[in-house]
Amino acid sequence: MSDITAQIDEANQQAIQIMMAGQPVWIGCKPALEVIPGMTKNTVLHAGPPISWEEMCIPMRNGVLGAVVYEGLANNIDEAQSLVDGGEILLAPCHSYSSVGGMTGITSASMPVHVVHNRKYDTYAYCAPHEGSSPKGFGWGTNDEETIQHAHWLEDELGPVLDAALEACGGIDLREIIGRSIQMGDELHSRCVAATGHITRQLAPHIINLDLPTSMRSRVLEFMLDSDIFALHVVMAAGRSIIEPAKGVPYSSVVTTMARNGVEFGIKVSGLGDTWFTGPAQPIESIFFSPEWNAEVAAPDIGDSSIVETIGLGGMIHAASPSYANALNNNFADALAKTEDAYAMCVSEHNSWMIPYLDFKGIPFGIDVRKVLQLGITPILDTATVHVNGGKIGIGEARAPFEAFELALKALAIEWEVTM
Amino acid sequence: MSDITAQIDEANQQAIQIMMAGQPVWIGCKPALEVIPGMTKNTVLHAGPPISWEEMCIPMRNGVLGAVVYEGLANNIDEAQSLVDGGEILLAPCHSYSSVGGMTGITSASMPVHVVHNRKYDTYAYCAPHEGSSPKGFGWGTNDEETIQHAHWLEDELGPVLDAALEACGGIDLREIIGRSIQMGDELHSRCVAATGHITRQLAPHIINLDLPTSMRSRVLEFMLDSDIFALHVVMAAGRSIIEPAKGVPYSSVVTTMARNGVEFGIKVSGLGDTWFTGPAQPIESIFFSPEWNAEVAAPDIGDSSIVETIGLGGMIHAASPSYANALNNNFADALAKTEDAYAMCVSEHNSWMIPYLDFKGIPFGIDVRKVLQLGITPILDTATVHVNGGKIGIGEARAPFEAFELALKALAIEWEVTM
Repeated sequence: MSDITAQIDEANQQAIQIMMAGQPVWIGCKPALEVIPGMTKNTVLHAGPPISWEEMCIPMRNGVLGAVVYEGLANNIDEAQSLVDGGEILLAPCHSYSSVGGMTGITSASMPVHVVHNRKYDTYAYCAPHEGSSPKGFGWGTNDEETIQHAHWLEDELGPVLDAALEACGGIDLREIIGRSIQMGDELHSRCVAATGHITRQLAPHIINLDLPTSMRSRVLEFMLDSDIFALHVVMAAGRSIIEPAKGVPYSSVVTTMARNGVEFGIKVSGLGDTWFTGPAQPIESIFFSPEWNAEVAAPDIGDSSIVETIGLGGMIHAASPSYANALNNNFADALAKTEDAYAMCVSEHNSWMIPYLDFKGIPFGIDVRKVLQLGITPILDTATVHVNGGKIGIGEARAPFEAFELALKALAIEWEVTM
Repeated sequence: MSDITAQIDEANQQAIQIMMAGQPVWIGCKPALEVIPGMTKNTVLHAGPPISWEEMCIPMRNGVLGAVVYEGLANNIDEAQSLVDGGEILLAPCHSYSSVGGMTGITSASMPVHVVHNRKYDTYAYCAPHEGSSPKGFGWGTNDEETIQHAHWLEDELGPVLDAALEACGGIDLREIIGRSIQMGDELHSRCVAATGHITRQLAPHIINLDLPTSMRSRVLEFMLDSDIFALHVVMAAGRSIIEPAKGVPYSSVVTTMARNGVEFGIKVSGLGDTWFTGPAQPIESIFFSPEWNAEVAAPDIGDSSIVETIGLGGMIHAASPSYANALNNNFADALAKTEDAYAMCVSEHNSWMIPYLDFKGIPFGIDVRKVLQLGITPILDTATVHVNGGKIGIGEARAPFEAFELALKALAIEWEVTM
């Protein structure tokens, strides 16, 4: 092994040890303006790598405009459009604000965000709650009255109840929740029913004691019952908190971020800090909820939720979630084959998150840019599918584009002072 | 195929169709005296086939005496003993009262019992709640002050809160809960964490609305959080309600009951109605909670919980629960081999309860006495292990004894008018 290879391998070990040692604890659900450093009243955060208003896909634009109205900065969508055109709304990636956002990722000042504290490294991360089982939501790229009213409900009731319950219980250990939920068939991206159950069980005894109106607390518990995927955005914040301290390990080729803005897919690599490397957002192989929809009306892959694949979950572990594989019309052998690919592109296995059907082998952990390119296979990203004009229309999976990994490797090669 | 064989096969199909069509709905949790037909103030029900006081094992005797004190029929254990000696306490199997009971199965008049209604056949079944994570309880064969106080708590708080919440939500569909929980790695005997999560999620929004003291409702939710196995006794009542209408299908060799009283293991067979066929209760292959315990201080297999194996769960489906297999130091291949044996001893597969790792093959369903004896392997019964003097000391698995199946087959042969 050449010196540089040994150096890279050692750096990669260091990067994954940092991620593996993370202790993400869900400690609150507070207004973004109150907790996200740098947040302002006229900032709207979005998913994926940086993108200008002009380049954004329609669902993301819809979400931005809806958020501007929701914040009371404009009275209607037309006024919101004028504000954006006038440059009065600051648009920035969630990732630049220690945050992640589902689908369009729209996050604005008044929205509640899950607050996750990585106790090991004292970093914080944020993610607005999943909007629930409705096909509408800023995340899904709608912005009608119903969408905006629902956003107010999340702000007025969901956030305060969760925040008070989390304070009462002293926080929820997400490292443990993730480990237990994998054992229960969650891949923790599109299937989060076990994690949502664990969270509900832990919060319910505290929610019952809160000095908040009964009807409000009841609606929050109904919301958590109605939406099996509720836990996803909590897990996303956990992922965001875990990867932060692993950024900037010199020489490391471990992927610390994967995110899509609907036009581009981007990654960050440990050895290169916060630089984005991008390629085109890919089409999603979808199962549509209705025969009226098909690939022609499906927007390309979008959202920061691929932070979960970055920490070895979701599309990396279909072998842990045959029920999700089944929803995609895959059998268990298909699921297993995909997970074997995931192992082949990773540095190692997680020491605590294990796949029961593989005799408790740790999940694949630490995507290595070199291995992805050697293997010639990129990570699978589990996802929901959004209509080109907004609205949830299916679930499915996309592959990350090679371009992002190729660009990252070229940049790493310069860092490593090797000729490709 | 001989005529009689065809007749038996057809009868078996009929019996399993009845069991498979069952629609168990958890509708309440009420005092035994109020809901169990025939229950009286001085009746104490126990697990397994009929057994006299003199023959009972110590844990069961402890439970009986504790229940007599708990009911206020005696002031202390000595007085309780005198009442039993004087024949003033009626002892009878839970199974004779449309009920099932965990471990010793002790069920007395004031205890709350889960009420399950099989909506398809309009039958009811009952099971006292699991006593929780403590190693003490009448079920575990202890009867000290702590055990008795806890029984009062179950009566005063757990029962009323569950009952009111179940009334408010209109009942919980256990057929669905069982199906979803198998997909989440519960074998639904020793591992019920998914089912307990589903139940909590469904009840919590109603518990929050109840007009009962907050501290009481909070303690109930804490209890359900503390005990992953809470759902077991609900599932047991579901099983009891499912098998009742399948009793008495002429010629059928399908097992409709398996239960142990700590001395004997007994089965009932559809074609022979409520007749018990018994063999000696078997030793348990245990994982002990502490090195101070070993097989010498472990009581033989006990409890009505094997109703879950009777409906294809628990020891029949380790392949659905690698996490439980792992707790027994079994790998997935071991678990799979056991489940293959279970398929070999069953008439068919369930049409709705499926094993994800076997590409959603239905669970083994309808244990056939003939097949058990042909195969030369009896069902595995998952279980907890009790100390010979009472108290929970481990978990493990036991095999049903051949004798019970042999006696049943002999009785069936007379019914079938064939020579064995």
